This record gives sequence, C-alpha cells and structure tokens, in this order.
Amino acid sequence: MSCKYCNTENKDLIFETKYWIILLADDQYDLGRCVIILKRHCDSLSKLKIEEIIDFLEVVKKLENTIKKSFNATMFNWSCLMNNAYKSNNPNPHIHWHLRPRYKEKVKFDNITFEDLEFAHHYDNKKVLKPSQIILNKIILKIKENL
Amino acid sequence: MSCKYCNTENKDLIFETKYWIILLADDQYDLGRCVIILKRHCDSLSKLKIEEIIDFLEVVKKLENTIKKSFNATMFNWSCLMNNAYKSNNPNPHIHWHLRPRYKEKVKFDNITFEDLEFAHHYDNKKVLKPSQIILNKIILKIKENL
Repeated sequence: MSCKYCNTENKDLIFETKYWIILLADDQYDLGRCVIILKRHCDSLSKLKIEEIIDFLEVVKKLENTIKKSFNATMFNWSCLMNNAYKSNNPNPHIHWHLRPRYKEKVKFDNITFEDLEFAHHYDNKKVLKPSQIILNKIILKIKENL
Repeated sequence: MSCKYCNTENKDLIFETKYWIILLADDQYDLGRCVIILKRHCDSLSKLKIEEIIDFLEVVKKLENTIKKSFNATMFNWSCLMNNAYKSNNPNPHIHWHLRPRYKEKVKFDNITFEDLEFAHHYDNKKVLKPSQIILNKIILKIKENL
C-alpha cells in the first residue's frame, strides 16, 4: 500500500519545522483542527527519534499558543491513532498527530458560528464540518498571522 | 478543584520512570489499556519540559514493546485529552496520556476473550469492559513479566 502521507501535496499547509509538517484538517468542527505529519516515513511512535519528539514539543507549544490567540480555544486534545492504515491488508502507517482545539464558548469566524457541543467530553468523531476552500484559506491565514 | 492525579494512590501501578507513573486502566476493553501520568502537576502539554518528553518517548517504546510481547497487540492509539477536568467550573487539569492497544485478532487471557470489534477504526469510548481486581492484577503481572 503506498503511503498517502509520503505523497501528500501539502495542501492547506500552515507551517513546517525540521521534522514535521502542519496542515489544516478538512474537518473544522473543532475550529483550527490540524494534522501534524512526520517528514520521514516511520510506522510507529516507538520508532520516533529523540530530536523528532523534542521538535514535536516545540510544535505543540507553537500551535496551542497560536490557536488560543487566533480563536480563543479553551484547551486541546492531542492524539496519534493511525487506525485507517490498518484497513489495508498490507498496513503502511505513517506517524501523524491530530490536534483538536476545544472550545467552552461559541466562536464566530467569517460569519460561521463554530460550537463545540461536546466540550468537556470526548470529541464525537462522527460530527464533521467541512467548510469551503475559501473559508479554509481564511482560517489558515488567521493562524499564520498569529504564529 | 483538587487534583485527582496529584492525589492518586497508584493503584494498579505497572512501573514508573523519573517523570511518569504508568497505571493499568480500570477499563480493559482494549486489553493492556494504560494511563501515563506526569509526576508533577502541569496543566497543558505546551508546558511540558524537554526532559519530560524525552522520558515519555522511552515510556512509549517500553509499553508498546511490552504489550506487543504480552498480548500480541497489533498497534497502539495514544491520546492526551484531559476533557474531564473541564467539567468543573475551576478546571485543574493534570497531564496524562491514554494508551489503547488495538488488536486485529481476538485475545484469550485468563479465560476471558478480548475482542477489538472496532479495529482499524476509531475506538468506541462507550464500550467499556471492567474486569475484577483479580483479573486486573493478573494483567499487570503479565505486563511486568515482559518489561
């Protein structure tokens, strides 16, 4: 199975570091939701190198501070799951993290109201909000302004 | 709000490192599910220190290898959520990670069959399996044998 993360076009890039690429997710139910992709192919967290996890901590700091500043996020859910890769008979996972900002209050951005109805509870992965590319670009711009 | 993680009794301890305490979770729907708790009170990942994240990577390696060896886990879901703390009016979160081992195949342990019906999909946080303390102790023992 070819790796979709090795072949990513870096659509919706927010920024990158030496070891990680940060993209805005299509799904913005949690406003500012991002995917953080390791720049080399590596199939499990246990094979991550020390310099990569140190750089990841810098990404965490940068993203949490920036998204708080941009949209007043209350707190953040981080996860490294990689379940989808195992739908294949020849799983070929590639390390990536999901960042879901969580919001106590509603946020209005570009005339859309984002509301985190599950705040203080586990996110509901069935709830999805996919804004147009124009809105995604505006969200990226707003985050970049605060980086 | 007092912090339940600062006041933990370390029930169901598997091991500890300089910065982290590793406990078996009550819920064993995902056999070997653990909670990894930072030893100092700290409310967000962005405030984690470099030495703590380096030590965390060692914990990841140790746990993934050990749980694979103990129960033939296929892969692992890691998350740092801390949603529950925000149910309070004065949230007082304390960094902890959830490790959910995921299984392509059924596992029989001590006459209980563990089956990961959501394998290759997001875990279902509503599915819970709480074995007796006797079984929890046996799971801890098995993991410790392979540490």
